[in-house]
Amino acid sequence: MRLMKTINQVTITGGTHGNELTGIYLVKKWINHPELIQRESFRTLTMLMNKEAIAQCTRYKDRDLNRCFSHELLQSDNPSYEVKLAQELNQKLGPKGSPNPQSDFIVDLHTTTANMGLTIVVSNQSDLTWRAISYLCQQEPRLKVYQWRGDEEDAFVDSIAPHGFAIEVGTVPQGVLRADLFVATEALIYHLLDFLDKENKGLSMALQNVTYYNHEMLVDYPRDTDGDIIAMVHKDRQDRDYDLIETGDPLFRTLDGEVICYEGEPLHTLFVNEAAYYEKGFAMTLAREAVREV
Amino acid sequence: MRLMKTINQVTITGGTHGNELTGIYLVKKWINHPELIQRESFRTLTMLMNKEAIAQCTRYKDRDLNRCFSHELLQSDNPSYEVKLAQELNQKLGPKGSPNPQSDFIVDLHTTTANMGLTIVVSNQSDLTWRAISYLCQQEPRLKVYQWRGDEEDAFVDSIAPHGFAIEVGTVPQGVLRADLFVATEALIYHLLDFLDKENKGLSMALQNVTYYNHEMLVDYPRDTDGDIIAMVHKDRQDRDYDLIETGDPLFRTLDGEVICYEGEPLHTLFVNEAAYYEKGFAMTLAREAVREV
Repeated sequence: MRLMKTINQVTITGGTHGNELTGIYLVKKWINHPELIQRESFRTLTMLMNKEAIAQCTRYKDRDLNRCFSHELLQSDNPSYEVKLAQELNQKLGPKGSPNPQSDFIVDLHTTTANMGLTIVVSNQSDLTWRAISYLCQQEPRLKVYQWRGDEEDAFVDSIAPHGFAIEVGTVPQGVLRADLFVATEALIYHLLDFLDKENKGLSMALQNVTYYNHEMLVDYPRDTDGDIIAMVHKDRQDRDYDLIETGDPLFRTLDGEVICYEGEPLHTLFVNEAAYYEKGFAMTLAREAVREV
Repeated sequence: MRLMKTINQVTITGGTHGNELTGIYLVKKWINHPELIQRESFRTLTMLMNKEAIAQCTRYKDRDLNRCFSHELLQSDNPSYEVKLAQELNQKLGPKGSPNPQSDFIVDLHTTTANMGLTIVVSNQSDLTWRAISYLCQQEPRLKVYQWRGDEEDAFVDSIAPHGFAIEVGTVPQGVLRADLFVATEALIYHLLDFLDKENKGLSMALQNVTYYNHEMLVDYPRDTDGDIIAMVHKDRQDRDYDLIETGDPLFRTLDGEVICYEGEPLHTLFVNEAAYYEKGFAMTLAREAVREV
């Protein structure tokens, strides 16, 4: 017999990036229909995260909010708009590292201009997080899992709760709502809430190990001395998220038409040609297939 | 024998919208390789239009530059950033309505998040403009033609020259460079320059009438009393640019899942779910197929 539930509050966050409409409009829907996300054994909270960016339909105002939840920035004395916002959200939804946080599980809703389909982006190592992922993969066979160790670590929204991940869906242009991916994201949330309710109630579930893609490295565009890009993702690599790339495969095409080929070991390409990553300095990421036992 | 050439200067403009990278990087390429766009019988000029918006990778700063070239705004005494810029560009590239303009032909390069493929957006009625379009359709069978009479008329960049049009290519998310559409846009420009050179030289060309889509109306998203959208383009209409829509076809899906069907006469849907048009108040446009004699 369980003495204590694992999950007392689940928080669903949308609009961490103000131009990713799927999460924003899902949260707006659930504000009008809270019954859809209530489950018997826990509270579900929704949160529109970066309201100024949402109003402007831009990713952020001064700084990417989804890189502001590091211990360092959460303690910054001289915060910019997004760092201050992260500090406030950390108090409301965390705080990070607390033994008694407001949110036990955070799921942060994103979209991408890359052809990532339905993806869980996970940094959290908790068993519960990975059991949830396993359950979702059972319910939605198209779902893929990317374990991120990218440009800035431990600074995502979901890092302020003991358990959680982000959902990334694509291809969606910034500022666009696509009905098919809206519906698919919504379904994933209902499955997640069902899983957490079952978990709280101690219901046994036959879960399978999770095949996932483990982050290896970032690959930047070729650039000139001013930092401006001088090449594009090659057409044969465009849209090939989760596909294997092998030595000699076309990778970039310069503006002048020269083909630049991949020279590394066989790995999988992810987040290929994501709009928001031009300024971050990567054209795609490379990952290795792996298995997590649950 | 011709006494006077029609075309003395062609201007290729990119970055009228600062987050539409194809035109921006084509112009950057041609700045480094001007020989690619020179032809024997005329000068070719390139212009990066909205440099502040380009630097911020945003559509515009204060106002959509591609709606600022109306007679009224070009004479405004109290201009915002983009209106002032339009007035300056009009002096450099026009002026509009002049019998002796700087540019005889302007082609303005755009991208769209809608599935518009390769499209000419034309408002100009000059025979030369439509002969150029006919030639391009011969050279590139995928090319489609949309005669726009949209939200604001006679205010596009190309309206300041006697001849010209815009090229719209998609699907491209804002802030993304796609190699396939970059190459296709580049090829269209070379064909256009070839045509204008032949035209100047009086070379005979067998041109065919142009099948085009003639603008009928704008269709807005269903909205609440605050103006916020409450529905998305239905998944069965998404990506179906240039396809016929008939009475009873699914058009929108509300956030709550209700399907809203089309009730009008059979027409073709264009610019379906373009990101930049959410704020302008349309989800798509409707057009009727027509033929222009050349």
